[in-house]
Amino acid sequence: MTETTRKHQATLDTAVKALHGRTFFAAFPENPSPEIYGPDADRLGREKFEALRNQNFTELLQEAPEQWVGQEESPYEQVSLGVKYPFFAPGTLVERAQGAFDEWRRLKPAARAALLTDALDGMKERFFEIAYATMHTTGQAYLMSFQASGPHAADRALEAIAAGYEEQTRFPEETRWEKPMGKYSITLQKTWRAVPKGVALVIGCSTFPTWNSVPGMFASLVTGNPVIVKPHPKAVLPIALVVAEVQKVLAEHGLDPNICQLAVDADDRLITKDLCENPAVKLIDYTGGSQFGEYVEGLKGKTVFTEKTGVNSIILDSCDDLDKVAQNLAFSVSLYSGQMCTAPQNFFIPAGGVRVGDELVPYEDVVQKLAAAVTGLTTNPKVAPHVCGAIQSPATQERVEKLVLDGGRSVLAPGKVDHPVFQNARTCSASIHEVDASRIEQFSQELFGPIMLIIKTENTQESIRLAAQLAREYGAISCGAYTTDQQVKEQIMDEMSLAGTPVSFNLTGSIYVNQNAGFSDFHVTGGNPAGNASFTNPEFVIKRFTWVGFREPVA
Amino acid sequence: MTETTRKHQATLDTAVKALHGRTFFAAFPENPSPEIYGPDADRLGREKFEALRNQNFTELLQEAPEQWVGQEESPYEQVSLGVKYPFFAPGTLVERAQGAFDEWRRLKPAARAALLTDALDGMKERFFEIAYATMHTTGQAYLMSFQASGPHAADRALEAIAAGYEEQTRFPEETRWEKPMGKYSITLQKTWRAVPKGVALVIGCSTFPTWNSVPGMFASLVTGNPVIVKPHPKAVLPIALVVAEVQKVLAEHGLDPNICQLAVDADDRLITKDLCENPAVKLIDYTGGSQFGEYVEGLKGKTVFTEKTGVNSIILDSCDDLDKVAQNLAFSVSLYSGQMCTAPQNFFIPAGGVRVGDELVPYEDVVQKLAAAVTGLTTNPKVAPHVCGAIQSPATQERVEKLVLDGGRSVLAPGKVDHPVFQNARTCSASIHEVDASRIEQFSQELFGPIMLIIKTENTQESIRLAAQLAREYGAISCGAYTTDQQVKEQIMDEMSLAGTPVSFNLTGSIYVNQNAGFSDFHVTGGNPAGNASFTNPEFVIKRFTWVGFREPVA
Repeated sequence: MTETTRKHQATLDTAVKALHGRTFFAAFPENPSPEIYGPDADRLGREKFEALRNQNFTELLQEAPEQWVGQEESPYEQVSLGVKYPFFAPGTLVERAQGAFDEWRRLKPAARAALLTDALDGMKERFFEIAYATMHTTGQAYLMSFQASGPHAADRALEAIAAGYEEQTRFPEETRWEKPMGKYSITLQKTWRAVPKGVALVIGCSTFPTWNSVPGMFASLVTGNPVIVKPHPKAVLPIALVVAEVQKVLAEHGLDPNICQLAVDADDRLITKDLCENPAVKLIDYTGGSQFGEYVEGLKGKTVFTEKTGVNSIILDSCDDLDKVAQNLAFSVSLYSGQMCTAPQNFFIPAGGVRVGDELVPYEDVVQKLAAAVTGLTTNPKVAPHVCGAIQSPATQERVEKLVLDGGRSVLAPGKVDHPVFQNARTCSASIHEVDASRIEQFSQELFGPIMLIIKTENTQESIRLAAQLAREYGAISCGAYTTDQQVKEQIMDEMSLAGTPVSFNLTGSIYVNQNAGFSDFHVTGGNPAGNASFTNPEFVIKRFTWVGFREPVA
Repeated sequence: MTETTRKHQATLDTAVKALHGRTFFAAFPENPSPEIYGPDADRLGREKFEALRNQNFTELLQEAPEQWVGQEESPYEQVSLGVKYPFFAPGTLVERAQGAFDEWRRLKPAARAALLTDALDGMKERFFEIAYATMHTTGQAYLMSFQASGPHAADRALEAIAAGYEEQTRFPEETRWEKPMGKYSITLQKTWRAVPKGVALVIGCSTFPTWNSVPGMFASLVTGNPVIVKPHPKAVLPIALVVAEVQKVLAEHGLDPNICQLAVDADDRLITKDLCENPAVKLIDYTGGSQFGEYVEGLKGKTVFTEKTGVNSIILDSCDDLDKVAQNLAFSVSLYSGQMCTAPQNFFIPAGGVRVGDELVPYEDVVQKLAAAVTGLTTNPKVAPHVCGAIQSPATQERVEKLVLDGGRSVLAPGKVDHPVFQNARTCSASIHEVDASRIEQFSQELFGPIMLIIKTENTQESIRLAAQLAREYGAISCGAYTTDQQVKEQIMDEMSLAGTPVSFNLTGSIYVNQNAGFSDFHVTGGNPAGNASFTNPEFVIKRFTWVGFREPVA
């Protein structure tokens, strides 16, 4: 164990430092180029992915499955992946996790952190395989599949490991406490332990099966809790590969692989609620819809971390170059066809127009510029498929296609995004609807998918008021604002900060409101209804263990 | 503001260091001697306290009270204190807190921390006045009244200030984030804010009106939240003096005194639930009974910190000197007549006896030794009144006097503790009951007051099993264990750590299981049903604010 610990200590120290500096840091290169990952990495990854199809997934070190189940299908092909996973009853999973608890919690935090960093190294070797698995479950385009599920997810995992390691080693393991009492002193030997809370459950979503799940998974693991990873039934393979890597490292070190288990729904039996309600499950990480998220948050006697849904706003007040702004926003709403939790939905534009330099561009011109930018992007065959990817769920496509807003105006109808390789891909370009600022019920809920709502406001003050109100009351994960007025900017920061929503100002070029960088951007703040947790603030790891002290007089 | 900040920066830095070193540190001397606090400090404090009696308490800077109310009475005299406090409707208190929020949250954490440290300096000048106020509301003996409500409370407050200050300054206010993209880089200016959650409520208890309330009060304040302090109606004066000192400092700095308000129940109207359920109240600190505590924990949309009740165990396995052990334990159960949340209640003794050196002392001899030690202490006129103090509530006295446990044996009946000054004091010496280990329903709830239950177990293994089970299922705040066996000690540490309960081993002499030192002992762990919070771990301050980030491309 000490050899592994030594090997990874420098990585951990660097990661802890990055976490605190919040300057740029990435332990895993996001560029899938052959120079970095090797000349055959992509091809080999694709081949390995193909070899997994229509097979039982036998890599997991979880014994005696009750049956083999699977229901994934590729949004690019609209055919089944055919991968079958071992199914275990929830009670079996929890019992095995409990059985593995003592062994895992007794390791020192540094040893656990090192083991888990080892597993990330193993994950790195499979980034391309994970990328293809992500592409053919979530519908993400190739580059995003690689980046989000591979290096970016691994960075987020390392961030959680580093944060957990730091917090558990923040207080001394022991100290001599000497209290002067005048003529004598009382001397006590004091020791402290960071005590893990118990069995942890991680519930994944269908669109970001590793990126959204590894932070909670590795945060619970590094703090000594055995973890049951329960992915969305439509996006199992990417995280199954990560769990397999963790189990491999555990087994190599003579540890029980049940410290980290994969749990899958049977085709006719959803097991998430059974797992949630098991009294032995003490920690739950959840990503997904708000309704189930609120059920999870309401469970008694559990420590719960959620990322649910919100409505993200763009506030357009003033800018230097409206074309660049429109291009940036068209990209943001089209990226992975609006299926990101950070994708903007509500675009607040003052009826009086947007100030560009000394000129006031009329409202309708701004609307048309946005529509033109979306059309330009989504009809460009060299760009569109690589930006938009495919639609994960038929329900999303149906939502976009059928959306009619009473009293609203359809500015741009959705269309297909032709794919050069996958003719049968489920695709949909962004639609644009104009709605009135008074019809808050039309834009106060998340319309998941490539949907842009343009909300005509009286002025920027109303835009800010509505964006902040929506974030406070319905949740928000991101906010973009365009203003050249320092006072307006300060007001937006103040009001959105009280609504627990991060703001990106004046983004143009190749940086987008959707993107959140590990080690720098806190993802979700926990400060509004979109979620109660944040990647990775100290709270995200601290709540997974308890400080307990012991003391005894020194002889 | 900067002058105050400069003045207190060294204190804060020292406090942060102490918090992490967890070696002995006390910023406020616990010895009330004239050499430290001045030759007239005690007399002046007593006179000031006497002058407050039978008067309206007019020090608070809270305008236009609806009426003047008060219902405190001295457990030493069993007569009313006659102090009347300004009453405000809950809605008025919350509105005023909201009105003061912007001003307070816009200060930098260092400025808030400095102001609050200033207020502690003001509190220090009134330690003796607070001591007499504590004595004549809680029934604590003079020395405990001084120490617990004065220096120890101030140390706990400083600890919370330091922790909150540190956490809010843990990440940079701004940084330049530069991501290399091959031929160019993306450069963003990023800033972060620690955003306070909003109006905070602190609900006090009748026995430790400052010690248990100031951590939450100062933790919420330092993190930028306006606080409403709602003491127990029978123990208002001690914390009213602290609130007055905070308000004085706020006013001196031109700030709204409503940043920290006192809220009292009217004689015919309890306002705590109204305050709790007000949607603007976002943070609640609570000390008191479990039933109300569970109500508070169950409130939706609030961040809640509780210290409720538990059942504290003593495990007797083996020791070097049984007389010293018995004396130590007799003191622990008699200190403030068992009205401490850390007082031991359940004494687990193996039926086979306790090993003392090479000898096995029979069970009954151990029981009689404990009874003799309690009798020796509580009938010693030079010691008893100063250890036992008085009984805060008639209900407690009644509980002790009327306790009969079905099938159990009364080992020692409760008696009076004569007081040299206050003939009319409400007092009660500890009673001892023997109950069978199988009757868990008799010892699984807190019997608040000077009650010692002796539970005859099969052996130490059963003692440990029961102590851990009770802590896990019913909560525990302290645990004392006596063993000379290293393996038994390790087992107790392991099992009690999983039950979230700190353990003091082999205490004899003048250090007791009841005592928890600021900056070193985490008080309550948050890891069992006795409470969900801990003084002062990082969680205690982190959950009071939200990290929100902003970013913008560098021109």
